[in-house]
Formats: sequence, structure tokens, C-alpha cells
Amino acid sequence: GAGADNDLYINQAVVFIEDAIQYRSINHRVDSKSLWLYRWYYSRTCQWILSLTITIILALAFVEEPSSLTVTSDVRYRLPAWNPPCGLTESVELLCFLVFLVDVSVKSYLIGWKEFWKNTWLMAYILTLTVSLADWIVSLSFSCTESLRIRRILRPFFLLQNSSMMKKTLKSINSTLPEMASVVLLLAVHLSLFTMFAMLLFARTKDNQQDKEWVVYFRNLPDSLTSLLVLLTTANNPDVMIPAYSKNRAYSIFFILFTVLGNLFLMNLLTAIIYNQFRGYLLKSVQSSLFRRRLGIRAAFEVLSALKETPGSAQQSCVSTGALQQVLQKAEMDSRCKQAILRSLKMCSCDQLSAAQFQKLFEELDKESIKQHPPSPEYQSHFMQKLQFAFGHPYFGYLGNVVALANIISICVVLVMDADKQPSERDDFFLGAINCFFILYYLLEMLLKILAMGLRRYLSYPSNRFDGLLTVILLILEISTFAVYGFPHPGWRPEFMGLLSLWDMVRLVNMLIVFRFLRIIPNMKFMALVVTTLLDLVKNLRAFAGILVVVFYAFAITGIMLFKGAVVPLGNTSCFIFQGKNVISWCSAHFQAEGIYCLLCLLSVNLICRWAKIYFVAWWLISSVIWVNLFVALLLENFIHKWDRRCHRESLSDIEYQRTVELMFR
Amino acid sequence: GAGADNDLYINQAVVFIEDAIQYRSINHRVDSKSLWLYRWYYSRTCQWILSLTITIILALAFVEEPSSLTVTSDVRYRLPAWNPPCGLTESVELLCFLVFLVDVSVKSYLIGWKEFWKNTWLMAYILTLTVSLADWIVSLSFSCTESLRIRRILRPFFLLQNSSMMKKTLKSINSTLPEMASVVLLLAVHLSLFTMFAMLLFARTKDNQQDKEWVVYFRNLPDSLTSLLVLLTTANNPDVMIPAYSKNRAYSIFFILFTVLGNLFLMNLLTAIIYNQFRGYLLKSVQSSLFRRRLGIRAAFEVLSALKETPGSAQQSCVSTGALQQVLQKAEMDSRCKQAILRSLKMCSCDQLSAAQFQKLFEELDKESIKQHPPSPEYQSHFMQKLQFAFGHPYFGYLGNVVALANIISICVVLVMDADKQPSERDDFFLGAINCFFILYYLLEMLLKILAMGLRRYLSYPSNRFDGLLTVILLILEISTFAVYGFPHPGWRPEFMGLLSLWDMVRLVNMLIVFRFLRIIPNMKFMALVVTTLLDLVKNLRAFAGILVVVFYAFAITGIMLFKGAVVPLGNTSCFIFQGKNVISWCSAHFQAEGIYCLLCLLSVNLICRWAKIYFVAWWLISSVIWVNLFVALLLENFIHKWDRRCHRESLSDIEYQRTVELMFR
Repeated sequence: GAGADNDLYINQAVVFIEDAIQYRSINHRVDSKSLWLYRWYYSRTCQWILSLTITIILALAFVEEPSSLTVTSDVRYRLPAWNPPCGLTESVELLCFLVFLVDVSVKSYLIGWKEFWKNTWLMAYILTLTVSLADWIVSLSFSCTESLRIRRILRPFFLLQNSSMMKKTLKSINSTLPEMASVVLLLAVHLSLFTMFAMLLFARTKDNQQDKEWVVYFRNLPDSLTSLLVLLTTANNPDVMIPAYSKNRAYSIFFILFTVLGNLFLMNLLTAIIYNQFRGYLLKSVQSSLFRRRLGIRAAFEVLSALKETPGSAQQSCVSTGALQQVLQKAEMDSRCKQAILRSLKMCSCDQLSAAQFQKLFEELDKESIKQHPPSPEYQSHFMQKLQFAFGHPYFGYLGNVVALANIISICVVLVMDADKQPSERDDFFLGAINCFFILYYLLEMLLKILAMGLRRYLSYPSNRFDGLLTVILLILEISTFAVYGFPHPGWRPEFMGLLSLWDMVRLVNMLIVFRFLRIIPNMKFMALVVTTLLDLVKNLRAFAGILVVVFYAFAITGIMLFKGAVVPLGNTSCFIFQGKNVISWCSAHFQAEGIYCLLCLLSVNLICRWAKIYFVAWWLISSVIWVNLFVALLLENFIHKWDRRCHRESLSDIEYQRTVELMFR
Repeated sequence: GAGADNDLYINQAVVFIEDAIQYRSINHRVDSKSLWLYRWYYSRTCQWILSLTITIILALAFVEEPSSLTVTSDVRYRLPAWNPPCGLTESVELLCFLVFLVDVSVKSYLIGWKEFWKNTWLMAYILTLTVSLADWIVSLSFSCTESLRIRRILRPFFLLQNSSMMKKTLKSINSTLPEMASVVLLLAVHLSLFTMFAMLLFARTKDNQQDKEWVVYFRNLPDSLTSLLVLLTTANNPDVMIPAYSKNRAYSIFFILFTVLGNLFLMNLLTAIIYNQFRGYLLKSVQSSLFRRRLGIRAAFEVLSALKETPGSAQQSCVSTGALQQVLQKAEMDSRCKQAILRSLKMCSCDQLSAAQFQKLFEELDKESIKQHPPSPEYQSHFMQKLQFAFGHPYFGYLGNVVALANIISICVVLVMDADKQPSERDDFFLGAINCFFILYYLLEMLLKILAMGLRRYLSYPSNRFDGLLTVILLILEISTFAVYGFPHPGWRPEFMGLLSLWDMVRLVNMLIVFRFLRIIPNMKFMALVVTTLLDLVKNLRAFAGILVVVFYAFAITGIMLFKGAVVPLGNTSCFIFQGKNVISWCSAHFQAEGIYCLLCLLSVNLICRWAKIYFVAWWLISSVIWVNLFVALLLENFIHKWDRRCHRESLSDIEYQRTVELMFR
């Protein structure tokens, strides 16, 4: 009937508006049932369950078989890790796979068959799931004793396909690859030509005393290549040239040329290329996001205009305000935006909306809310007003900073004096006493500020929240210290009692005090600028961090599989780190959680195993060279924009730009 | 008389035009004698003598007393360096000072008293000369036995003050300093807060087995600070966290946080700031250069218009073309520009030039000349024409590249096969034979190309000049090898004869062949772009390199003075490099010529001496952090501009930009 039709149109408009808000594509089924399924799929609960499943399947690596999630990382001391019985992690995995199966079927159904065949991500999703399930069956049929588990390397794919911004970023990285490949090729040419030069220059001579350079660094082609590759990372920088340099100073020209060309020119060229490519991409991506939003709003307009034949001009479609109000009530969106749109809808006296008016209404979505702090309380008493003026004044905040600095300095002095003392000689009285005094001051400062500003206004400032929270924690720690160990007095050094020793308690308090000192940041103009830029950057970096997690995970799992069983406890730890083959063992032992640091194994020693060499070079190229350069590009872009804005004051285009940059990574 | 007046005006105009060409200021005396002195002072001979004097005084450090200009750098083997007798270097120095005295007096006289008091560079010049002369007298009165020679540190100032582009660059660096200081302050806050955290975290415990971290890296405040500062350079990256990490994996969070915040954020922030500041400065500086040129031309116009009262309108001053022709004949300028201006002067039918026309004539100066290659010879014979087509075709060049690649690969194969052979087992026959064949091919290729293109056209391409020169050198080497050692035959391994052994000759030939392989660069599009960008960069980098030389020199001399006499030959070289105090000795021994590599001493070891620590930290900050970032900024600017031009094709504004960037650093 017409009522059901109207309901369908309203629902379609609601979904399109929601699509516009979330920058989603409007390419999906729009019949009644599909719409219900679509809203259910994109509801918070469903998306939350999906995220949880992805987290669980990624976290499984920490408890699965070659796990090293122990407190100590030293292979000599650590207890054998807990090995879950066969079938435990596997059944958790199966549950996750079932969730992914539901996810992929709903997604495939919703976009329809036509779109499905065009969507490579969905196809890859199904393929990954199929391979994973097959591998899972193999695993169970071998009772978890099989050595190769492909599905573990595939896991990060689930994280990747679930985030549209990660897919976007990946696409941008992909478009930069040809240029990057050119520079990497150039680096390879540079490296190979210099390797040939080096082999000709540092050839074996008749005098054994004279060819140290040959023996240690340029014995054969792989050795020479490795020496120069490591020199490119500057890790073996003075060492590699010492023997040749001892023989003749002129040999240093070779190394200086290599370093200047490779490190200074080619490596920075990579930064320039990535920065350059990245700038263009950012703009394009923002444009496509905005286009999606406009498209969603337009689609909503079209379905609403089809709702009932308007008696007016037939060539110009219109939407009644009543229908729009109905849609807005049903749509899930930020309540502030909703109120603003409804308000401007009421202010508009017309009964019918044209397409342009309709779009204009929704521009509210693109605006950022400006936060207003609640007002200070108004005191009647003259004395209270004076107090309020004194303690609400910025100078009172500055005084607090000075006191915090004094506290830091006093802690520093005590640390320097106590540096070489035996734990038994240490006296905690002085530190305990001054900290007690300072914490009382902090408490007083907090209370006076709350008195002057009122609790709500006080809490509306992030710096006050930070300050207040730390003050409360410090107070609780101090009170519990006194409850357990009594008040400080000379020779205050009681034995271990309760949860932490007195010394640990004092250290914890000191650390918190040092941390609390960061409250000075908003008071220093340049620091505040830098810190806000960095915070913005962290927001924008989520997509990059996600991709980094994907790469880390894949590398870590590969590393575990490659170097499994190579861990042999040998002699002194700090010594065996620096001996060829054992580096790999050490790396593999530490790889699971802290892959990044293994990069440095490559840098500090000449690895023996060929495969390990290739593995680490790939790791270095991807994590250090490419990712760091991407990061630098993002930082440059963000910072330069922020800087420009500060200098030229906000103009319209600036605001627009900021909005677009923020949009892109939301 | 009027004739003398006219001559003076003409001479003034000539000097102003020359000022405009060289972007010099027109603030100088303009009377007859001063003009003569001015032109003499800026003549090529005078400026060449001045440059030579600066080079000599800077080079003196290589032969003066604590000189280490010996072949080997190993303190155990090297012969005592040649010590010039007292008075030899001193008299050379005195000669240089006399030249500088003349220079400073002429300069001061020419700009006039009023300007002199405003010119801080000139004042500093006089002060430096006075201090140097006083120090020189002290030195002679002590018969060269005094330990402190201030004048040696002051020497780079003479280089600095003589180059206007270095002064300009210094000014730009100076304007960036406040921002850089803010980031360095931020780094200092970061470092000190984390140092306090570390000292609290890795405090001494009762169990000696457990506090390895404390013993090695965080024993006291200076140790902790150094450990974290070195971590900021990533030099001790995995080592510093190993003991703590062995105890508890969670400690790695501290180090990861420190590295990410310090290395990834703050260090790159420095790049962003320098890049940002530098961009604005470049534009401003180019504008001021162009302004100087316009001013010089306008001044020439003004004096020429005063030459004779034109009968025309009194309110609009004009210049007769005859006077301008006279000026142009006298002025020293690029002959191509001169011809072009004279030509357009003739084409302009008018007898009088207005100010605008006058300026327009000199726009020729801002244009770049486009180089045209001479035409190929035209052969009558049909056969020769066919030959010309075949060998002038690009494919013939590609064939040459393929042959060069084949040669490289064959050398590489021989190198890999011979890598582990004793020198006595080596047989040079195979390499000798193939190189002989390939060099004959190169010769043939060169001759055929000359036949096809004609000698003049062949030489007009830089790639051909490079190719031809190397081919000729290779031919000479090959012929002399055969003359001394005979033709290659199996077992071709004669004893040492003549200047170089056969093995050395073969190696030299191989190196040249590897070097010749660089001819492929112009054939690869991306490589050509990168290489031209790098070459442009090198042109633009001269000012930066000059300032780097100044900083290097001052640091090297300070280093020599600080660590003089600390060189003690001890045990094995490669071992004692890595032992605290001796690093300084090693550094001081190597400091004179290769200061840059001493930076790495700081990175790889914990220095003992406080002063050395401060010295090396300053060195690291200036040379590594600031200079490298400046370099990256310049590279980014150059490369991104070049890239944009390639993508969007040349538009008017691009050409203008390119011109201005090139102007700036000329």
C-alpha cells in the first residue's frame, strides 16, 4: 500500500543520511528487509562484537604454542611458558571464524551480486576465510602437531579489511610504490656499484698484515654487500673503515662518498618522494570522502521527493519539511547536530525544501562544535570574591608550576646524593618529608581552584583534570604509605610491609610527581603548539598504526616460524647477543612482542644465516625506511599546516582545509 | 668641464650596471677615483688573489704543528709528521694578514664612513684581524712555543665574510634559531624528565644480580643522561635496554616510549620546523636579490638621464640610446647578454628610452641561455648516410649500455670466483682478455659515434664527453699494460714491473669500467630526474657547504687544542677504539681531516671525560642534527619543485620560480 511505500522511503532516507554521516558508500540493497539488516549490521553492538573478535584472534598468538609471554625475556632464567591443551585456542579460533563467516555473508548480501564481483576486498576476505578454515581442519587432524600454520600469517588481514581508513591508506601507499621502487632500485644500483669498487679496492694482498679490511668486511660478494648495506644504516659506521683508514687515509674518501650519496642523498630522496606523493593523495582522498557525504544526502533527498507528488512545479522536485523531521528523528546522529538541523529547519519558514536548501541544512555536519566552559560561581561575600579573584588568576597557576619545579629539583638533588649509596644506607626521611609537604600544597591548590572556578568549570579544562587526578592518586598513595609505615622521621627505613616496600612507594610517588610536571605544557606557547600538533598527529596516525600492526604481526609470526627452536641458552646474555648466529636466536625469542627492536640485530652484527639476512633486510626496508618516511611525511604536512594557520590567522580556506584533513582520518 | 662630468656619469652607469649583474648593493662611493678603485677591487684578478689567500690561510692547519697529515692514521705505525721551523708558517700567515688588511681598508673606504659604522660584518672583520695580528705577535715573541693559538679558531671567519651568499645563508639559519632552540629545549625537557624516571625506575637494589641496568647505564645523573642521549641517536639502542628487559619485559615500554617520543616525534619536528622556516626565507632572499638588480639598473638610468638635458618633456627623464651603447661597451658582462641587449636596442627605433623601456632591455639578464647542439655532418655517399643513420640511432647507444653491463657482469663473476684465492694462485688471463675485447668495442663505439655525429656534436653532449674520456684513459692504460707485461696468455701473472703491478693495473681498469657504467643514467627516465635534481642541489649547496667547512674547521681546531697530547699508542687498534678514554685520543688523532667520523665515537661508547662529552654533544647537535635537517629541507624543496614541473609541464610561474631559486644561490 501507499503507507508501506512511504515507510520504506522514510527508512531509505534515514539509512542514506546515516551513510552520509559515516562517509559510507550508498551502494547497497534498499528493500525493507535489507535496510533492517543494514542498520542492524552497522549498529554499535554488532560492530563492537566484530572488533572484539578481531582483537581476540590477533591476541591468540600470545598464548599459542611458541609463545614467550613470560615476565623475564632471558632464556636462561625464564620458566617454560604455559602451553594450552590442543583444542583450546582452536575452538576460540573456530568461534572467531564463525563470526567472520556471518560478517562476510551479511556484507556480500547487502552490497548485492553485481557489486560483489567487483569488490576485490570481499573476494579476498572469503578466500582468506576458506584457507584459514582448511588450515584449521588440517591442524586438528594432526592434533596440533603440524609445524606450519598458514592461518596465523593471514590473521592481520581481518584487521585490515574491517577498517575503511586502513584500506584507503593502503591504497595510497600502493600508489606511491612505483616511485619508491625507483628509489630502491637506485639504492640497489648504488650499493652494487660500490660493492664492486670495494671488492676491487680492498682485494687480498700478499701481506697478511695489510689486508685486514678484506678479511673482516670484504672477503666475498655477500660479505661486501652486507658491510655496505649496514653502512647505509650507519650502524657500523666508523668500524668498517678503520682497517683501511689505518693503512691509508685516502681510503676514507670511498666511505665518505658512499655515505654521502647513499645516506644523505638517496635516503632523503625517499622522504621527498613519499612526502610529495602523500600530499596529493591526502587531498584526493578527502575529496572522495566529501563526495560520498554529498551523495548520501542527495540520495536521501531523491527518495524523500518521491514520497508524495507535490502539487507544485513538476520539473523541480521538493521535499516536505515534515518528512525530513520524521527522518531526522529516526536517524542515529550526534545530538548536537540533530538539534542544530531541526532548529534551522524551524527557522526556515517554507514548507517545501529544494535540493540546494536540503544540502545546506546538512552542512551543519561538517562544522566542529566549539566547546564552552561553564561559568564560575558568583559569590555574594566580598571576601569570597577576593579569594575567587586571587585563586582564579593565571598567576596562581604559575605559582603552582614553580612549586612543582621546586619539587622536581628537590627530588633530583636527593637522587644525585643517593645515587651511589647502598640500599641499606639509604634514609627515606628527607624525601618523605618534602614530598608530604608538596603533596599537601597540591591538594590545597586543587581545592582553592575548585573554590574559585566551581567544580564543573574546573573539570572542563583537560589540564585541570590531569592535575586533579594525579593529586588525588598522590594523596591516596601518601595516606596509605603513612598508614603502613607511619610518619616520616630521621632514619625512616622500615622493613618490607604490605604490598610494596617503603622505597618502592617513595619511588612511585616521585615518578607521579615527575609525570605531574607535564602540567606546565599549556603555559608555554611553543610547547603547547607542538604538543597539540603531536596529539592531532596521533589521531590521524591510527590508520598508519593499524597498518604497522598488520606488518608487525605478519613479520613476527614469520619470524617465529623461521627461527623456531633456534633458542639456545649460551653463556652470558649481553655477550652472546653480539655473536653472529645467536643473534637470530635472541631475536626469535624476543620477536613476539617487541619486533621493532630486532631490527637492530641486523645493524649491530653480521648475520650468518642467509635467510635471516634477507628477512631482516626486508624488515628494515619496510619498517624503518618506508614506514618512518611515511610518518615524516604526515608530520611535515600536519605541522606545516598548523604553523601556517598560527601565522596567518584563520581564513576561510584554512578552516576548510583543517576540516578536510580531520575528515579524512576519522 | 662637461666632458669630464659626462665621463663620470658614464662610468657611474657602467659600475651600477655591473652591480646589477652581480646582485651587489649600490651603496658605495661614486667619485671618479673611487669608481676606478671599485672596479679594480671587483676585477677578477683581485678577487682571485683574495680567494687564494683565504685558501692558503685555511690550508696552513695541515702543515702546522700538531698536524697529522701522514699516509697512515695508525698512531703505532706512522712516522712523525713534518714540523715546519718556527717562522715559516708564521711568515706565510703575515702575508695573508697583509692582503686582508688591504682588503678591509679598500672595502671600508669604498662604502664610506656612514655605511661603515652600520656594517657589523666589516667591524667584525677588523676586530678579527686585530686579534689575529696580536696573537701572531705573541706567538713570535714566545718562539712558537705557546700552547693556545686563538687566531687558528678565527681563521674560518675570513672565508665567511668574503661570500655574500654564505652571509645570507647564515642570516637565514640565524632567523631559524629561535624555533630550533624551542625544539632543542623541548628535547632537553624530554631528556631530563625521562632521566629522572629512569633513575627512579632502575634504582640500586639489594640483589646485585638484579641491578645490572643500574651498574652499566644509570649509575648516576651524568651516566643516565648520557645513556639516554646516546639512545636518542639510536646508537646504543638494543644494548641499553637488554639488562632491564631480561629482568622484566615491561621495562621495554619505558625505552619504546622514550624512542618514539624523542626520535620519531621531536627529531622529525625539527625537520618540519627547519623546512618550514627555510621555505619562507628562500623567497624573501630571492626577492631582495631581484630588488638589488632593479635598483642597480634604475640607478644607471638616473645617472644617464642626468647626462644631458633632453629637450623633451621636463617631468619625464629619458636616456639616449647612444649613451647606453657606450655604457654597454664598457661594462663587463656575459657576451651573449650584451649582444642580445644591443640587438634589441637597435630594433627599438626610438632615440630616447623611458625608465620602463630601460628596465625592459635588461630583462635579458634574467633569462637562461638555451644550449644548441651543432648539426651532424652531411655525407654525400649513400653508404655513409646509412652508416650515419645506424650509428646515430639511440639503439646503438642502448647496445653500448648492454655491452657495458655485460662487461660489469663478467668482472663481477671473476671477482666472486677469485674472492678467496691467494694472490699467488690468481691468473689474470681471463680478465685481461675480456677487458681487452670490451675496451676495443668501446673504442669502436666512440669512433663510430664520432663518424655519425661529427666531433663537435659528439663533444657537445656531457654523456659523450664522460664516455669518451674514460674510453681514452682505458685505452692508454691497456696499451701501457701490454707494453710492460705483454699480451695476456694463460698463466699471465708476471712479477712486479714498472710503476704498478699487473694486478693493480687490472684492478684500476676494472674500476674505471665500473665507473664508466654510469653512462646508463641519462637513458633511465627516473634516474635522470634524480641525478639532475642532485646536481642542481650540489650547485645550490655551495653556501651550505661553505658554512659546514667553517663549522668543521672551528671544531677541528678546538678538538686539536683540547685533546692535544692525548694520543697514546695502546695495544690493538680496533680494540682500543672501544675503550672509554682512548676514544678521545683516537678522535683527536683523526680529527684534522675527517672530523665527521668522530661524531660516531660519541655514539658507540660512553665517554669518560666531561669536556669531551660536552664537545661531542655540541658537535652532534650542530653537524648531525641541524646541518642534516637543513640539507633535508633544501632537498625537499628542490625535489618537490622539480617533480611538480615534470608533472604539470612548464608554465610561466614555474619558469619564474626556477629562475629565482637559481638566482638566489648564484
